[in-house]
Amino acid sequence: MKKELHFERTEFSARLANVKKEMAKRGLDILMVSDPANQHYLTGYNAYSFYAPQMVIISLHRDEPTWIGRFMDAVSARMTTYLADNNVRHYPDKYVASTTLSAYDFMADVVKDFGAEKATIGVEKAGFYYSARAHEDFTKALPQARIVDADLLVNWIRIVLSPAEIALMKEAGRIADAAMERAIDTVKPGVRECDIAAAIYHQQTSGTPDLGGTYAAAPPNLCIGKRAIAPHAAWTDEPIATSASVNIELYGVRHRYQINLARTVSVGEPDPAYQKLSEIVVSALNAGLDSVRPGRTCEEVSAAFSRELARHGYEKEARVGYPLGISFPPSMQMRTASLRPGDKTVLQAGMCFHLMSGLWLDDMGITITQPFAVTATGHEPLTFVPRKLFLK
Amino acid sequence: MKKELHFERTEFSARLANVKKEMAKRGLDILMVSDPANQHYLTGYNAYSFYAPQMVIISLHRDEPTWIGRFMDAVSARMTTYLADNNVRHYPDKYVASTTLSAYDFMADVVKDFGAEKATIGVEKAGFYYSARAHEDFTKALPQARIVDADLLVNWIRIVLSPAEIALMKEAGRIADAAMERAIDTVKPGVRECDIAAAIYHQQTSGTPDLGGTYAAAPPNLCIGKRAIAPHAAWTDEPIATSASVNIELYGVRHRYQINLARTVSVGEPDPAYQKLSEIVVSALNAGLDSVRPGRTCEEVSAAFSRELARHGYEKEARVGYPLGISFPPSMQMRTASLRPGDKTVLQAGMCFHLMSGLWLDDMGITITQPFAVTATGHEPLTFVPRKLFLK
Repeated sequence: MKKELHFERTEFSARLANVKKEMAKRGLDILMVSDPANQHYLTGYNAYSFYAPQMVIISLHRDEPTWIGRFMDAVSARMTTYLADNNVRHYPDKYVASTTLSAYDFMADVVKDFGAEKATIGVEKAGFYYSARAHEDFTKALPQARIVDADLLVNWIRIVLSPAEIALMKEAGRIADAAMERAIDTVKPGVRECDIAAAIYHQQTSGTPDLGGTYAAAPPNLCIGKRAIAPHAAWTDEPIATSASVNIELYGVRHRYQINLARTVSVGEPDPAYQKLSEIVVSALNAGLDSVRPGRTCEEVSAAFSRELARHGYEKEARVGYPLGISFPPSMQMRTASLRPGDKTVLQAGMCFHLMSGLWLDDMGITITQPFAVTATGHEPLTFVPRKLFLK
Repeated sequence: MKKELHFERTEFSARLANVKKEMAKRGLDILMVSDPANQHYLTGYNAYSFYAPQMVIISLHRDEPTWIGRFMDAVSARMTTYLADNNVRHYPDKYVASTTLSAYDFMADVVKDFGAEKATIGVEKAGFYYSARAHEDFTKALPQARIVDADLLVNWIRIVLSPAEIALMKEAGRIADAAMERAIDTVKPGVRECDIAAAIYHQQTSGTPDLGGTYAAAPPNLCIGKRAIAPHAAWTDEPIATSASVNIELYGVRHRYQINLARTVSVGEPDPAYQKLSEIVVSALNAGLDSVRPGRTCEEVSAAFSRELARHGYEKEARVGYPLGISFPPSMQMRTASLRPGDKTVLQAGMCFHLMSGLWLDDMGITITQPFAVTATGHEPLTFVPRKLFLK
């Protein structure tokens, strides 16, 4: 069966070696990877199946990872990963949504097969796909093991993207640009909010003639009129008024690598104060970007943004940015670095961030943002839609 | 501020009363609701914010639920719920993706404000939004409380939909029909797989001229050609061949109520064996549907389906159906009843299911399915796309 891999085998080997090195440093024999982005990073696995119990097991003493999931998804594991067939394991359907059986007993049995029932085992305690119950069942099934929290172990490694990954991020950027252009074209008075969302989804998924798109970790944010003060509101069926602010956050995704991008469109002549606010946001955004270089910390970038904003009398409570990379629903949040005060993470070439310079005030909201990659000497923007308030 | 509620206040009161009754029966003073579908059911809350820690607290001793979430999403809580402003609480942004602070300490403080630090507290242990770490932090912050598993308490109540909810499910069905018609229209040789997915997303989100759509819990499944044997594969950029099977599972979603629907399109003349298989699947599907009535059990419906399939020499390992209703990413799975052997859940009028009669064999896959509501006397289909193999 043809393997659908988007990276050289050597790249997967390097990723695995880095993870094993960190495991050894922490004294872990086994790492149970439940985060689908981490599973994808280490094996290439790509199917929408992680809502059922699914793990990738990394053992210090085994060459390849082992994928374990629902029986019907093993076919996707064989299609999309480099794993040998005997490293694809699957549990029968009776374990799915069962009130009596736990798939984590099955996972524990595989660990026992590896002779690791007394091992030190890392688990990702704070992920979406490792519930309180999963942990309880897994721990109970391995009473002699030492089970420790290894949350974010893989995330802190994959936060630095390789040149091949950056190439995909740039492709994702072309898709995000196309989607934003389509969104801005579509916004006009009388168009239903849901039809703008539909156009965004269409373009995100179609991509460009050369680069097909795929699903993002989350729906676009489309917050219009009175909802423009809410960052994550749902769109409605209402038509756009003749005068309204339209806040759009959308995505370009290429082979699971995601770019986030936000712009505001003003329908009708904007209030001069609002136009002025947009210029202040862009100026703070540019100040943040200009401060980016390897060796600087996340909090220094945040401070550069905030200083420029403060010069005009504004402040932003929320962090001003977060890392970008592999994304799976429900969120592309890597939960590692944040561009905010107190974050001492040192920027390295290959890290990608979304400088999330949206401002939500009591009476208005505005979002003009920029995804970028850290380069050897500074930063490189990953999208090219102009940084300005668009007027329609 | 105008409240964006899709149900009468009396309906929300009835839901809350049912939950409190079950809490009292189980000796729970407090229920910590982390599942966004359950939060929506009990308060109306609707924003894409549940990837950050977010809870709805039900106390036997308080009239209204209390929403707790990220500060920037409190504005959505005030817009989309019926809750009084003092029942909307929010934590500052420094708690988001922090390595030192836990939002569950903040949640515990609210429980203490309620004087419930020694209470019996139910938590939803197996949900996507209650991680092993969340449970550890919450438990540690309330050392005198008795914390017990109340997973699915709300799910087993909301599995029976009210007439007002069924009305939304029917609207969702109209959207699913429109999306499936669009999908079938779009499938033809030479069209890129991603462009078919794009058309599906567009129609799902646009809905119909009268009924706007919204995001579903998951991306459509679009498994084409050699991927037709995988139930949850990702689509590609490849153009459709002149002869191929196209398996499509898509959604209609109306105000967070979701319908699932699947069809297979055969591009080019299908193999006679494949055409025959499609007739067998439809005949098993119809046998399953005909067996539905209040008082029957889930396993009886599954058996009716399987008997008809077996008569033609086939069997399906996976369960043949699951409940439908409120949906949020990453999955609409309610984790309650399943149409499968051993499930003694008794059907009641108002329950909705997806009869998931897809078959994935070693060399071919086919999906012709039917969402339906249980009525007083039998069942009512929720979509009207013909049950057949479509030819293009």
